[in-house]
Amino acid sequence: MEEAKWTKMWLDYHRIYDGDMDFKVALDGFAEDTAVIANAIFEFRKGIEELTGVKVIDVRKDRVIGNLKTLSIKKTDSVPPEGYRVAGSDDGITVEASDERGVLYGIFSIIRQIACGKRAEEVAEEASPSNPLRMMNHWDNMDGSIERGYSGESFFFEKDEIIINDRTRDYARFMASIGINGVVINNVNVKGAASYLITDRYFDRLESLSEIFGDYGIRLFLSLNFASPIEIGGMDTCDPLDREVIKWWEDKIKEIYDRLPLLGGFLVKADSEGRPGPFTYGRTQADGANMLGDVIKPYGGIIIWRCFVYNCTQDWRDTKIDRARAGYDYFKEQDGTYHDNVILQIKNGPMDFQIREPVSPLLGGLKRTNQMLEVQIAQEYTGHQIDLCYLIPLFKEVLDFHTFCSPEKDTVADVVSGRTMGNALGGMAAVINTGNDINWTGNDLAAANLYGFGRLSFDTELSSEKIAREWIAMTYRLPDKEADILCSMLLRSREIYEKYTSPLGIGWMVTPNTHYGPSVDGYEYSRWGTYHRADHLGIGVDRTDKGTGYAQQYYEQNAEMYNDPATCPQELLLFFHHIPYTFELKTGKTLIQHIYDSHFEGEEEARKLAVDWDSLKDLIPEEAFERVKERFDLQLDNAREWRDQVNSYFFRKSGIADKKGRTIY
Amino acid sequence: MEEAKWTKMWLDYHRIYDGDMDFKVALDGFAEDTAVIANAIFEFRKGIEELTGVKVIDVRKDRVIGNLKTLSIKKTDSVPPEGYRVAGSDDGITVEASDERGVLYGIFSIIRQIACGKRAEEVAEEASPSNPLRMMNHWDNMDGSIERGYSGESFFFEKDEIIINDRTRDYARFMASIGINGVVINNVNVKGAASYLITDRYFDRLESLSEIFGDYGIRLFLSLNFASPIEIGGMDTCDPLDREVIKWWEDKIKEIYDRLPLLGGFLVKADSEGRPGPFTYGRTQADGANMLGDVIKPYGGIIIWRCFVYNCTQDWRDTKIDRARAGYDYFKEQDGTYHDNVILQIKNGPMDFQIREPVSPLLGGLKRTNQMLEVQIAQEYTGHQIDLCYLIPLFKEVLDFHTFCSPEKDTVADVVSGRTMGNALGGMAAVINTGNDINWTGNDLAAANLYGFGRLSFDTELSSEKIAREWIAMTYRLPDKEADILCSMLLRSREIYEKYTSPLGIGWMVTPNTHYGPSVDGYEYSRWGTYHRADHLGIGVDRTDKGTGYAQQYYEQNAEMYNDPATCPQELLLFFHHIPYTFELKTGKTLIQHIYDSHFEGEEEARKLAVDWDSLKDLIPEEAFERVKERFDLQLDNAREWRDQVNSYFFRKSGIADKKGRTIY
Repeated sequence: MEEAKWTKMWLDYHRIYDGDMDFKVALDGFAEDTAVIANAIFEFRKGIEELTGVKVIDVRKDRVIGNLKTLSIKKTDSVPPEGYRVAGSDDGITVEASDERGVLYGIFSIIRQIACGKRAEEVAEEASPSNPLRMMNHWDNMDGSIERGYSGESFFFEKDEIIINDRTRDYARFMASIGINGVVINNVNVKGAASYLITDRYFDRLESLSEIFGDYGIRLFLSLNFASPIEIGGMDTCDPLDREVIKWWEDKIKEIYDRLPLLGGFLVKADSEGRPGPFTYGRTQADGANMLGDVIKPYGGIIIWRCFVYNCTQDWRDTKIDRARAGYDYFKEQDGTYHDNVILQIKNGPMDFQIREPVSPLLGGLKRTNQMLEVQIAQEYTGHQIDLCYLIPLFKEVLDFHTFCSPEKDTVADVVSGRTMGNALGGMAAVINTGNDINWTGNDLAAANLYGFGRLSFDTELSSEKIAREWIAMTYRLPDKEADILCSMLLRSREIYEKYTSPLGIGWMVTPNTHYGPSVDGYEYSRWGTYHRADHLGIGVDRTDKGTGYAQQYYEQNAEMYNDPATCPQELLLFFHHIPYTFELKTGKTLIQHIYDSHFEGEEEARKLAVDWDSLKDLIPEEAFERVKERFDLQLDNAREWRDQVNSYFFRKSGIADKKGRTIY
Repeated sequence: MEEAKWTKMWLDYHRIYDGDMDFKVALDGFAEDTAVIANAIFEFRKGIEELTGVKVIDVRKDRVIGNLKTLSIKKTDSVPPEGYRVAGSDDGITVEASDERGVLYGIFSIIRQIACGKRAEEVAEEASPSNPLRMMNHWDNMDGSIERGYSGESFFFEKDEIIINDRTRDYARFMASIGINGVVINNVNVKGAASYLITDRYFDRLESLSEIFGDYGIRLFLSLNFASPIEIGGMDTCDPLDREVIKWWEDKIKEIYDRLPLLGGFLVKADSEGRPGPFTYGRTQADGANMLGDVIKPYGGIIIWRCFVYNCTQDWRDTKIDRARAGYDYFKEQDGTYHDNVILQIKNGPMDFQIREPVSPLLGGLKRTNQMLEVQIAQEYTGHQIDLCYLIPLFKEVLDFHTFCSPEKDTVADVVSGRTMGNALGGMAAVINTGNDINWTGNDLAAANLYGFGRLSFDTELSSEKIAREWIAMTYRLPDKEADILCSMLLRSREIYEKYTSPLGIGWMVTPNTHYGPSVDGYEYSRWGTYHRADHLGIGVDRTDKGTGYAQQYYEQNAEMYNDPATCPQELLLFFHHIPYTFELKTGKTLIQHIYDSHFEGEEEARKLAVDWDSLKDLIPEEAFERVKERFDLQLDNAREWRDQVNSYFFRKSGIADKKGRTIY
């Protein structure tokens, strides 16, 4: 019964075919007794045995019967760091890599290929990560709660203590299997006990955790309280240019690294939503980040500094201030002054993980600064892991976006990978969607986002469909027709969610605080800077050169495109422009008719998703099927509320009837 | 320093004049050694000594110097129950009463008259209560929290235990001083530990509490969990017609009264907002109430049954269902079937304590049923005891309302007093506004509502101004000019609050859950049945015979008046009618212009309130002055938000500009 406490997600192997020959392992250039290699071999053994029924023989101990194939693990300089080259043959499988992580990833590649239908001898892949850093950010609090968590409580923390159990290792296995190499375990809003994570109180357990992680190629990171000198140091300032403060940090960082030599570094949210930061002392964000960067440098650590800084006490009456501008306004000026081991972590859009936003102009707007793209797979604004919303297409759009920051290699993928500027640091981070629910992600199908983010951060060239198909094959092993159905469900889901929620990039319209379900005016008169500005004639925020000027934060090509309603991509029209309801879209529809149509369609298409799921009933394990089915029931309620509230709101405001005469209240 | 823990509100006596002669006490027909009489004498001694400096001499023990006046306490049948006749003369003061409560109230009358400026020899009043029952309802939870409490935590409960301390007795003194004779100490939503108040776990403390109350003429009541047979009895039903359930209640009530002989009875909220009730078993509200009434009858107890029953999972799309109708629909049919010791407790309006509502049609709509009027002095929807809102004018309007239920004596005051139908039971109850804040009521000025409700329930003929002037005189003892200012502030405050919040009786438009501050659409698409139905052309709920038919629940004269926009009182226009923004009101203004004007005026007048308060600076005790000043600062923020959000909302929706060209966003 121990096994039933949590699912194995995509690592729950079932027999794919019957292998004919057992394996032995041969190492060339790697030591067998390092933990990472041992784990790699463990994963190969577990995978190949469960998938094909053959054994991995220890030729020194086990009795050999018949011929053996060889898993040959070879060190080579011809493969980039963390990369691998795997090739199957009748003699076995070769894994070539230049480092241990490469071996681990190569093994998981083999398992993945077999799980997806290849025979061992057909296995073949050469790959190396698109991004140096591929990270998960947990927003777990030490009391066990998770900020914006929709999958139960934390599996890292409970009652201000750190949990280490079998689940911890399974977690590390999941992360390694999709190429994640860094994990921040605690919430960026560091409060209470979490401020003491960098004290002796927690070093023993953190050390164990960092080792379990390290053995799977993952570096442990912590979120840091910028006010630590005050809160745990008893000082009266945390001014980053204060000598005493710097000294305090030097001593503290030495103390930390003495005990946690594997620590990757720190993630910092400063001067944001009530968190302390350098602004308090009239310092720049660079002053704060660089000070910490310098202090941590001798230990090989890095500082990841979030760019989520904006005025969260805005007066809704003030149409001049634009929250969308804030990140660029605050961080662009210091471009080039951030030190080498400092990375700015930038949300994909300028607002906050809405279903549709333009790409943040900071991405590529910064030309001489390490950058990391932050996305959110925790579905804060995208359905709380109740509503199906496969987010990889959204992430792909971001990665493929041309910033025009460089004559070549100017996509966001290029920028954050370091390719554009030749940076050694950069990559992608996701606010993770896990918790201690039996299935880890609340909605079983939300695991596709967890899997997909890891795979995409490792290889940004992968398509959304390829990733979806991999995840489906590894998770459910459906017949082709049903796999197609599920794949189509995933690929349609983001657009469906967008259709029945906020239209054309305007965002928000969610229930305040919870961010689930509609409340069209919920944030319209609030202090959060998130307005739609709808009146009886039109809706949208003028962010052109005649409005807040946000569009001008982009390089010229994009600035011009966004500035003109005629060239602005329709799906972002209301993000950049205040548009009359009677405005004719490129489709020939008026804006108001588009709002009505898309909401009716979105709700209908959500119902179709649920019908599609029902068609898989006998092919999905019963418990998983029922869990997801319950979520679809809730999603349909939600879609209906969104449809009717949004349509009613705009009908009541505009007075313009639906041309098709459908029911609006 | 013990004294500084809480204020004495209107019982904080200061020297008014120097009396010339000490008093002795003479009793005629009352025994000196009963607790109520002893407390009455204690109150006289304390009051007369602190107000005039003379002493009350015990002629058997103290040395008598010079002549004495006499406080003569006489029993007489010529005064109604709980009434008193007090008369001062050069020889002293006489108090005549037919019972001990009458003596107590007579003494407090003497003190009040002296505190308000009369000399002892001038004291003269004959009074008896308008209402048999004059009750306070605490919504205190046993964990110490207070539902809709804005004055700190409970002073009755903490960590699931009952608190008894000096504050308990002061509380009883306050209540007796304003004529309150019944108190329900726990929240009508009975959950958790509160379900166990009727078990041995709490009897000892409840007994002590009932005695402290009883010694000040107050009967203790408890809120009851209708599902007690299930929750504490371990049964599988609480069907009121089930023999086993009835037997369980018989045993339980006997057990309770064996230990708490002074208990007045129970308040029950059934079948409302998730509470269990008779509907669960297909029984009527009368079935539930009568069963409990019968069981408690042998002990002289009464059952107070709340009429706050409605569908709180309404679909906002459904314009046929009208929450306002629910109370009448559920309770009218069984009129005449409720037993003699059962009282229906009816909120003043059909919705829920909004700043303006019509009077509930159940009041007087029921012709053969004991009725109690429920009002809320806890300012849930009227400013959270931050905003100044003197509610006595609102209560007066309710009491003065002609229901037309009888050719004579048809006002609500007549109905609930029992005068209309000759009922022995009935009266008024207030959801109280107290907590353990130092000043008891959060805003010091909110004590005027506490004081005022008690006085009004004792004498419904008192004017709002008379009550305000009494309270001011007893609390602050200001010079005439400043007393006039403060009195004017109180009397203006309700209309001001109405002006800057929701217009013309439509109600709500509050922030969901908290109910403080504006959110025009906050409940518009919710399940709570509280809608304004605003579109680009107009606003309001059609409750006429062409709409939900609610207006037809009144007797003909009122039904006709409400049914026609021409005769409907303007302040309730939007409660009964859906009205175009361009509709011309009796004032000659359009509806939309009225909305704009009243909101600009309301905010301005709120600012004037704050200025008026500042003018009292040196005449109000400093701490109290500052506490209230802080509240005014918050009120002005609130008024500004209301003004701008409501005006912006309707401007954006209607597209009609303010004729005066003021700033609307």
